[in-house]
Amino acid sequence: MTHEHTLHLDPRVRQEARNRLLSAKGHLEGILKMLEGEPYCVDVLKQIKAVQGALDKVGEMVLRSHLEHHVASAAVRGDTQRMVEELMEVLKYR
Amino acid sequence: MTHEHTLHLDPRVRQEARNRLLSAKGHLEGILKMLEGEPYCVDVLKQIKAVQGALDKVGEMVLRSHLEHHVASAAVRGDTQRMVEELMEVLKYR
Amino acid sequence: MTHEHTLHLDPRVRQEARNRLLSAKGHLEGILKMLEGEPYCVDVLKQIKAVQGALDKVGEMVLRSHLEHHVASAAVRGDTQRMVEELMEVLKYR
Amino acid sequence: MTHEHTLHLDPRVRQEARNRLLSAKGHLEGILKMLEGEPYCVDVLKQIKAVQGALDKVGEMVLRSHLEHHVASAAVRGDTQRMVEELMEVLKYR
Repeated sequence: MTHEHTLHLDPRVRQEARNRLLSAKGHLEGILKMLEGEPYCVDVLKQIKAVQGALDKVGEMVLRSHLEHHVASAAVRGDTQRMVEELMEVLKYR
Repeated sequence: MTHEHTLHLDPRVRQEARNRLLSAKGHLEGILKMLEGEPYCVDVLKQIKAVQGALDKVGEMVLRSHLEHHVASAAVRGDTQRMVEELMEVLKYR
Repeated sequence: MTHEHTLHLDPRVRQEARNRLLSAKGHLEGILKMLEGEPYCVDVLKQIKAVQGALDKVGEMVLRSHLEHHVASAAVRGDTQRMVEELMEVLKYR
Repeated sequence: MTHEHTLHLDPRVRQEARNRLLSAKGHLEGILKMLEGEPYCVDVLKQIKAVQGALDKVGEMVLRSHLEHHVASAAVRGDTQRMVEELMEVLKYR
């Protein structure tokens, strides 16, 4: 979805999201390494859950920034309906 | 946690889990690429959710295999308590 | 939390939420009835999950109304920080 | 699903589940009361989440009992496939 330049992710949040995603990627590579051996199922499940926890944290950061910088000012811009539809879609359970 | 050789992840499930995790990793690299530009917050949130969904699928595969090959035969091995404790821990919400 | 009269739940949404919660309550009473007999565990789990689904729907309705009527105009009222903090708290995983 | 008498919910777990569901029902009635007035949206969301938390706890209790008393002995009874299918179904995200 193309947006005027104003609706971009806050640069500081963007950088921290990158750092966290890089570590989540490293973690994921660790699980791939594990799967080369003969891992115990529950150990694999725990590692997957840890990566999901890290992704949750990134999602929370981006969501907070979006609420603050974009959703809270929707009425001023006049795009409340679109902001709310998008957000309800992305907040639905996986 | 060290386990007798019998409690390993089924080799076929292990291979499919590897393939799916490799694609999740590629997806995650896509988000990192996105964050080099000026992405719109909701687009980032959607991509994170897609990676979460892929990880959910891998988790479900490993869980099913564990239930079938290990938990269902716990009473025969005599390690029901440990199997149940581990499973309840890993099934808790993130 | 006391709020000026303007920050109330939209009356139409409030009525629909009441109706849905009344039916969720009836459903819950059904589970209680079930537990007077000798139910099979998985049947109980399915019924609990159905009530959770109904509560999810009510939550989604109230959230949508809150985003539309209150969060989207936070910048106009000047209470963006509080709106975002509250929302992040309530959106956290159970 | 009809089951031999052996596959019933453990009586002690059944009683505690009843008690917890009774209190969840009381809590739900509290939200209904709230909706008769002019509640603030986030207060309603918090109460719904609290009821869901209580239902999660009941679900966890019933699940633990099912794993211990039924799933762990599936290989002995010879109904592993059915036990696993049912469990995977009920464990899926709402």
